[in-house]
Amino acid sequence: MERDDLSQQLLFLREIDRLKGVVRQSPLLDRSRKENSAEHSWHLAMYAWLLSAYAAEQVNAGRVIQMLLLHDVVEIDVGDTPLHSGGSHAEQSALETQAAARLFGLLPDAQRDDFMALWLEFEHAESADAQFAKALDRFQPLLVNVFTGGGTWVESGVSYEQVIQRYGPAIRNGAPRLWAICEQWLAQHFAERGGSTPN
Amino acid sequence: MERDDLSQQLLFLREIDRLKGVVRQSPLLDRSRKENSAEHSWHLAMYAWLLSAYAAEQVNAGRVIQMLLLHDVVEIDVGDTPLHSGGSHAEQSALETQAAARLFGLLPDAQRDDFMALWLEFEHAESADAQFAKALDRFQPLLVNVFTGGGTWVESGVSYEQVIQRYGPAIRNGAPRLWAICEQWLAQHFAERGGSTPN
Repeated sequence: MERDDLSQQLLFLREIDRLKGVVRQSPLLDRSRKENSAEHSWHLAMYAWLLSAYAAEQVNAGRVIQMLLLHDVVEIDVGDTPLHSGGSHAEQSALETQAAARLFGLLPDAQRDDFMALWLEFEHAESADAQFAKALDRFQPLLVNVFTGGGTWVESGVSYEQVIQRYGPAIRNGAPRLWAICEQWLAQHFAERGGSTPN
Repeated sequence: MERDDLSQQLLFLREIDRLKGVVRQSPLLDRSRKENSAEHSWHLAMYAWLLSAYAAEQVNAGRVIQMLLLHDVVEIDVGDTPLHSGGSHAEQSALETQAAARLFGLLPDAQRDDFMALWLEFEHAESADAQFAKALDRFQPLLVNVFTGGGTWVESGVSYEQVIQRYGPAIRNGAPRLWAICEQWLAQHFAERGGSTPN
């Protein structure tokens, strides 16, 4: 590990400070402001640590933590894409891959390759670890919405059916027992809100 | 893992959302605002991941990451203690231990015990992992100060000798090669600032 490697690593660590300025749609639980992607990543890593027993298959919690610490770094270049925004998935995906190449490209080659491989594994949900990480990345904002009386669902006029459709597949796939509980919360939440309610 | 465990885990995950509201002395690198302890913890975990080769002894990077994700959670109850604040270390330490007992006590027993043990290992710098984690917890704010033209050192009128004294022991102990580079930065930084300069 040479001095040049360290210069590259510090440049990357300096650059990713900007993730603290990427603002998400979800609020903090006290509703004082919107959450940023850096603190969101920290929170998700804590979810992974505590909840790994709920993964669909056995996972390596340490890898899931790393995946989640890393998963949003591309937003430094492309911003956060709200779940309820619509938009072209393919176009977004191409931009994020470009961002990953630029950002991870700041690192020494071996770490660049490790980061890129782990990020792609997450993006493509190619493993049990990635599928669990993806599940948590949906589970946490769902919880925020439940805990804040609807949050972004109310703001964006999202219906029960849309919530099921947008959060369900990833959570059911990666953490089926967590999804079973989500279904109960959602039924109750939308029943209380009235409007489009489940059967 | 029973439903009751999950209720406790979710209560904890909900409670630690408040770490996003604990504001530190250090600014973001773009100086737009002060950093909070949740995003700081995320950033430190990335430091640990990338820089583990600079640890004084071989470390388990995954454990160091977990330690750093967890290390500031007690600030939810006691707030951030600025490095340049003075104040009684023993009193602060007692308050933090109380906070750890309350917060980790929200978790199922086994996880409570794991978290407490890891947090105490960090607090007491009892292992190579903890010593490296402690080093990074000083190294990151030092970098922020260097990158922002003095930051909290200028605000608090901190001298070269005080910086050496407050940051040096932890960084030198846990990551001696990083400290060697810090010494070069500090000499240059304080020479440019004038006033109290190194020899």
